[in-house]
Amino acid sequence: MGSKEKRGLDNKTMTKVSILYPHTRGARFDFDYYLSKHMPRSIELLSTHPGFRSVTVEQGVSGTEPDSPPAYVAACFYTFDSVESFVAAFMPHAQELQGDMRHYTDIAPQIQFNEIRIEKVSR
Amino acid sequence: MGSKEKRGLDNKTMTKVSILYPHTRGARFDFDYYLSKHMPRSIELLSTHPGFRSVTVEQGVSGTEPDSPPAYVAACFYTFDSVESFVAAFMPHAQELQGDMRHYTDIAPQIQFNEIRIEKVSR
Repeated sequence: MGSKEKRGLDNKTMTKVSILYPHTRGARFDFDYYLSKHMPRSIELLSTHPGFRSVTVEQGVSGTEPDSPPAYVAACFYTFDSVESFVAAFMPHAQELQGDMRHYTDIAPQIQFNEIRIEKVSR
Repeated sequence: MGSKEKRGLDNKTMTKVSILYPHTRGARFDFDYYLSKHMPRSIELLSTHPGFRSVTVEQGVSGTEPDSPPAYVAACFYTFDSVESFVAAFMPHAQELQGDMRHYTDIAPQIQFNEIRIEKVSR
């Protein structure tokens, strides 16, 4: 196993902030606004923090059965060097970013902190 | 910022396979086995496929309130260049990997396919 694969286990633990929007019948989610306005602004604000490592923004496609709905319709994953760094990066902009959510969805996101235990990237 | 120019690291649409283990009262999850046996074996088998891009294995720490339980206790995210590549990489080993699950958990994972729409990595 390469060193990258073990990164979460030895020297530095990475924190993943997971923001999932559960698939909800009748709910509204404007991907155009989310992808062209909300997330670019969020990334602009948060990625300047020195603890920022990466972010992905994802669109749920399906469950394992073809054409089955995904459990969550959208997701955003921020990786920071620690929970403290994320909180420090986010808090000054919490009001703006949370206030902007009504422009693209009425789904309450499910937010949690994870620790990355194994990571492997193709060479 | 158009989402297209940010797709993946190389302007190709990337597929994320998300395998979440929901936090379940009274359920069993053996992280030692999962991190030292199951996932290393899974990564060994799947990462040889040319469509493999990356994988992370994560441990849920908390919700947004301190000491609140995370919605999912563990997660594995495989990034491949397409759903088809993932399926081709996984199917030959489905029986072994799925059969191994009982060694670390009795939680039924929530599996879905996502499309990565925005990705940004710290430089």
